[in-house]
Amino acid sequence: MFKLTVDPRFGDINAMKHANSIAAAMWFEHARNPVFRIFIPDLDLSHEKWNLIMARTVYEYNSQIVYGSEVDIHTYISKIGNSSFRITQEAWQNGEIRATCVSTVVHFDFITKKSIPIPDDIRKILEEHLQEENAGN
Amino acid sequence: MFKLTVDPRFGDINAMKHANSIAAAMWFEHARNPVFRIFIPDLDLSHEKWNLIMARTVYEYNSQIVYGSEVDIHTYISKIGNSSFRITQEAWQNGEIRATCVSTVVHFDFITKKSIPIPDDIRKILEEHLQEENAGN
Amino acid sequence: MFKLTVDPRFGDINAMKHANSIAAAMWFEHARNPVFRIFIPDLDLSHEKWNLIMARTVYEYNSQIVYGSEVDIHTYISKIGNSSFRITQEAWQNGEIRATCVSTVVHFDFITKKSIPIPDDIRKILEEHLQEENAGN
Amino acid sequence: MFKLTVDPRFGDINAMKHANSIAAAMWFEHARNPVFRIFIPDLDLSHEKWNLIMARTVYEYNSQIVYGSEVDIHTYISKIGNSSFRITQEAWQNGEIRATCVSTVVHFDFITKKSIPIPDDIRKILEEHLQEENAGN
Repeated sequence: MFKLTVDPRFGDINAMKHANSIAAAMWFEHARNPVFRIFIPDLDLSHEKWNLIMARTVYEYNSQIVYGSEVDIHTYISKIGNSSFRITQEAWQNGEIRATCVSTVVHFDFITKKSIPIPDDIRKILEEHLQEENAGN
Repeated sequence: MFKLTVDPRFGDINAMKHANSIAAAMWFEHARNPVFRIFIPDLDLSHEKWNLIMARTVYEYNSQIVYGSEVDIHTYISKIGNSSFRITQEAWQNGEIRATCVSTVVHFDFITKKSIPIPDDIRKILEEHLQEENAGN
Repeated sequence: MFKLTVDPRFGDINAMKHANSIAAAMWFEHARNPVFRIFIPDLDLSHEKWNLIMARTVYEYNSQIVYGSEVDIHTYISKIGNSSFRITQEAWQNGEIRATCVSTVVHFDFITKKSIPIPDDIRKILEEHLQEENAGN
Repeated sequence: MFKLTVDPRFGDINAMKHANSIAAAMWFEHARNPVFRIFIPDLDLSHEKWNLIMARTVYEYNSQIVYGSEVDIHTYISKIGNSSFRITQEAWQNGEIRATCVSTVVHFDFITKKSIPIPDDIRKILEEHLQEENAGN
């Protein structure tokens, strides 16, 4: 499991005084960097090297995330398929999961625009971060 | 059905030269303004008046949205429950649906922090925008 | 002068119930698309074709921009130098300028990483949009 | 001086493969939290307690900020006036200042909508973080 701690930004907070759904989406994306590094260790953004594309993202907003208190983002792999895999993420604040994000990511060739099987060496590293989802996710 | 046309912003486009998932999330949120106006006609953001909270959002990214060509966001109601309802949105570019967003929104009292049934007059307006989801959504 | 009308997004509004400075920055960037098209008509984002880079941006926040009321962004050229030029932008809401953005943009070769003079044909088009800044900008 | 380290997010990077100006603006805003805490220790966002408003922001983009390498944001006070003060911020990557942000912030009463003098106890704390700007800023 990967961990990232974020301190909400003033502009992340909306008029209802909780973090806007888009702010949470940014934190989750930010916290996926270590997963991206498994596939592209130097995070090279060329079309030849970058090989991940987002297929689907499901966000659940369980309770309101507030300003002035840190948020811990927990990131792990929850499923590994042939050419795609699933990342599950939890946003913890004050001892509870306040939001979750489940992303389906495809191993993708940006030159041929086709999905490609996940190679065995990468699959092994993903398996080290494989974890069952918390009940309720 | 509500329609909004957006012209992607330079910074919406990521290094893979397509719109980042967060940019799409912002367009979809932007296009929900007419739905919010059904509940809060003057969009008053006080805790006494604002009465909608996001519970869940599902994004599907079917194909890449590019820069320099307009995106039409179609927004309609796809389900009406007791105190919650579902908004389905499609992002069209160059004649095809390139991304969708399905949101579950709860009619909510920010003072008591409880969900509240959707009143009949609002339910009638929502029904005017009720539509079956496109196959595949 | 180029004009763009935006309807503030729910998440653009911060806890003080006015548009966050970053939301305004996004509107101004969005409204620069027509200026970018003068240099790169098809908005091709390749390093060979794209030829503009931001050097400096000055934002002034005169009064609060609120939700539920449209914002008109006026965009014009306020200075043309040898290889750089200045874009001045105003955000109008309810009959007054509530924010301004003055950007210094450089005509730039992303392959050699050097600034390049603005060619005469482009200079002529820029001059058509050249305008004196409003007093106070 | 306050320090914050950020790891650029995939979506922070634009098609030119450097951080978009808006991404930098978000990092700088994020790094202003410790300054906000001097005025509002619990970061209470009520109109009665929150007392800061942004008047002006100047960004300089000296060189391109890239993905995959951390960015250190240095934040200090560069001027203290009667009711306003100036925050200077630098974004360091790979040993050089790649962007700066100079903000003019006003001590403000959101109920009366008027600026208010900075009290002596807060002024003393600001002075502890007062520093001359780096040459070139």
